[in-house]
Amino acid sequence: MYRVSVYVTPKAGVVDPQGAVVERALPALGHSGAHDIRVGRYITLEVDGSDAEKVKADVDDMCRRLLANPIIEDYRFDIDAAEAAPREGA
Amino acid sequence: MYRVSVYVTPKAGVVDPQGAVVERALPALGHSGAHDIRVGRYITLEVDGSDAEKVKADVDDMCRRLLANPIIEDYRFDIDAAEAAPREGA
Repeated sequence: MYRVSVYVTPKAGVVDPQGAVVERALPALGHSGAHDIRVGRYITLEVDGSDAEKVKADVDDMCRRLLANPIIEDYRFDIDAAEAAPREGA
Repeated sequence: MYRVSVYVTPKAGVVDPQGAVVERALPALGHSGAHDIRVGRYITLEVDGSDAEKVKADVDDMCRRLLANPIIEDYRFDIDAAEAAPREGA
């Protein structure tokens, strides 16, 4: 089993309304030194399997087809082998 | 100047509707081995300043007051010293 972290970010040059809202809001909270704010998504998942190359190919396919919009977003991901431990209770 | 990456995730035990939707959609795309999907936010920003401790305290305050909802979300962040290079053209 692999633990996967996916990072989805708006492509450079694509308008990021959420980032713009945060950037306008921060000075009112006393944080005027923050800029270039971009808001993306951080997705964590677990994928069954023992072949890292296959898991990487599967996750790339998930990103292209569902998790990211490749027209306007970039994505990258890390995979990390994990023991198939009993799931934590929620 | 520091480059900051903020990772916001739904707390364990908090219902994550986006994650549930992704988990239901993936089998139709041929990915039945993915589970425990959680969708959070990945926020990148740049913060002016030369004192890492002050920048950390500032970012922690931004997270608690604007970027995350501490009732239902966890957050963590990395900061990374960056040269004050000319900003990239978009």
